Amino acid sequence: MRTRAAVALAAGQPLEVMEVELDAPRKGEVLVEIKATGICHTDEFTRSGEDPEGLFPVILGHEGAGVVLEVGEGVTTLKPGDHVIPLYTPECRECPSCRSQKTNLCTAIRATQGQGLMPDGTTRFHMLDGTPIHHYMGCSTFANHTVMPEIALAKVDAGAPFDKICYIGCGVTTGIGAVINTAKVEIGSTAAVFGLGGIGLNVIQGLKMAGADMIIGVDLNDDKKEWGERFGMTHFINAKEAGDNVVSQIVEMTKRGDDQIGGADYTFDCTGNVKVMRNALECAHRGWGVSVVIGVAPAGAEIATRPFQLVTGRTWKGTAFGGARGRTDVPKFVDWYMDGKIEIDPMITHTLTLDEINKGFDLMHEGRSIRAVVVY
Amino acid sequence: MRTRAAVALAAGQPLEVMEVELDAPRKGEVLVEIKATGICHTDEFTRSGEDPEGLFPVILGHEGAGVVLEVGEGVTTLKPGDHVIPLYTPECRECPSCRSQKTNLCTAIRATQGQGLMPDGTTRFHMLDGTPIHHYMGCSTFANHTVMPEIALAKVDAGAPFDKICYIGCGVTTGIGAVINTAKVEIGSTAAVFGLGGIGLNVIQGLKMAGADMIIGVDLNDDKKEWGERFGMTHFINAKEAGDNVVSQIVEMTKRGDDQIGGADYTFDCTGNVKVMRNALECAHRGWGVSVVIGVAPAGAEIATRPFQLVTGRTWKGTAFGGARGRTDVPKFVDWYMDGKIEIDPMITHTLTLDEINKGFDLMHEGRSIRAVVVY
Repeated sequence: MRTRAAVALAAGQPLEVMEVELDAPRKGEVLVEIKATGICHTDEFTRSGEDPEGLFPVILGHEGAGVVLEVGEGVTTLKPGDHVIPLYTPECRECPSCRSQKTNLCTAIRATQGQGLMPDGTTRFHMLDGTPIHHYMGCSTFANHTVMPEIALAKVDAGAPFDKICYIGCGVTTGIGAVINTAKVEIGSTAAVFGLGGIGLNVIQGLKMAGADMIIGVDLNDDKKEWGERFGMTHFINAKEAGDNVVSQIVEMTKRGDDQIGGADYTFDCTGNVKVMRNALECAHRGWGVSVVIGVAPAGAEIATRPFQLVTGRTWKGTAFGGARGRTDVPKFVDWYMDGKIEIDPMITHTLTLDEINKGFDLMHEGRSIRAVVVY
Repeated sequence: MRTRAAVALAAGQPLEVMEVELDAPRKGEVLVEIKATGICHTDEFTRSGEDPEGLFPVILGHEGAGVVLEVGEGVTTLKPGDHVIPLYTPECRECPSCRSQKTNLCTAIRATQGQGLMPDGTTRFHMLDGTPIHHYMGCSTFANHTVMPEIALAKVDAGAPFDKICYIGCGVTTGIGAVINTAKVEIGSTAAVFGLGGIGLNVIQGLKMAGADMIIGVDLNDDKKEWGERFGMTHFINAKEAGDNVVSQIVEMTKRGDDQIGGADYTFDCTGNVKVMRNALECAHRGWGVSVVIGVAPAGAEIATRPFQLVTGRTWKGTAFGGARGRTDVPKFVDWYMDGKIEIDPMITHTLTLDEINKGFDLMHEGRSIRAVVVY
């Protein structure tokens, strides 16, 4: 079939909206009509050419929602008409990683996904002249129709609005999941969140759900104070004003009762800046503070600290897709949204058509959007 | 009273054995006759002048065992005749850190201990001319008698031999505790241990107790192979021969069944070398590997890695005194030794008199001792 897609022909170029060929789903695959997709920093990381593993031509996009149109041979858990969210981290429930019950990083189709291919080593997308187009993160939601493996689709409530729940495909789950799955924050904790963009705000709303007493937000931009407070932030630090004192300020702020050591129980980096990651670790509480890296750093960048920071009881962790097992957890997040337990609507600041998709990248660069969503 | 002690008069000098003055125990303090003390790398770190926080003159030593001679006002949990192990990490059970139940790093007397003083801000040791001599890590076991806070003494089985259980005051507890308290290794795990000295061998014996399937030891010295195997090591890598391939070798060795990703479930640095700490992290299993820093790095040295290592599920932690709560856990370790559950005797490779103490440091430098113990 033919479908319309925003294609990244080469690194650093704007996307080009065009007709492309899409093959029918093969064994274990599913044809999905994408109804809406968010535009995330990770798409931009690859589009810009910064991603050393980026492949072109490619159809980007990994934060979508849509409807199953057709299922390939052997697909048993989905049928036409099901509403789904594509999962860039699949959940096969069979591989050693899934079976370990210690990680969400399913490895069933990892190798081919990293090469921009379907599990059988080929692409379903082609230019009209037959040139193969790479898949992206196994999703390619910047196409109105896409083909995905069954294990990479979460079936969700058919009553949920596509233009909101698409955000659960990455930002919402990454932020809230980092709090509840990776850090496992307890009621009464203190926390610091670095970077109040689309991920950081979801970390804040996760911390509020988890019952944190103190939620300190850190950002370079004062405009983010109101945004943070909207989702449960209790204190704000302007990182530009704080400069090198951001760690000591957080340590001071988190001294409570007879605990005059200070430091946040949990800290989260949502910036991708390796210096900020270090600050996030070092303002964690001596003895038990846990710091979670969420942001994606530039290629080759390294985090560093004195090992003394670890020996005195701090833990440095990371999270991908918020530690969520997609097929199990994503439907739950959609239900939480429908029940009013989590908020998404105010974060979707811009809605665009596919033809306007490059505007979505501009809004991101200008810091004007929390999330721009393309609705097909 | 007067007692004999090995005094470090200045950084980088050999210790000098001499008579010193020791004041009576004050409120909350206890006079202990030290019967035996191990010589640990941390003593050497300070003696040599490498420790930027080192203070002189000082009586070093923090790995001892002895008998209570006298208790100060208000001491209720100890009485003359009790056998005790000094704790450089006290356990007050009252401070916010102890109450947190998340760390063993009691903070009750942290500030004064770091300054080489008793909790009231003075020293009990003096030169015969009255010059104060600093305490060391709150212990100073290189003196035949010392004064310590009640909260820094673990009461242990009076039948246990001092010249063996003194090692529980640091090396044994640090190594085994890192496995059972900090890493919480499960039966069937794979593990890698970097550095097969006095700590590394105890990590190995802890891993064996914890039921690890595969215990890979890494050392520069082939002589350590036999030592490692003696305590349960199943595989050995000579780090000099492996060079830059040590990470990939461990990843290959730990591939099991259909898990073809590889990586050790738990890794431990017992070297203090920040490059080794990085290797230890990076050979931990994607998705769930935990790497524990035990070694003390040179002043100013920093650990580094790409944040991708954390984002793909590895955790970087550290441990001090093996995460053990001294008054609670050290008596248990002594019982385990008495019950034959853990081994110490073969690791005590040299026994010296106090007058021979500098020979103990020489043996350590020459790599000829696992542990040299001074018996008073």
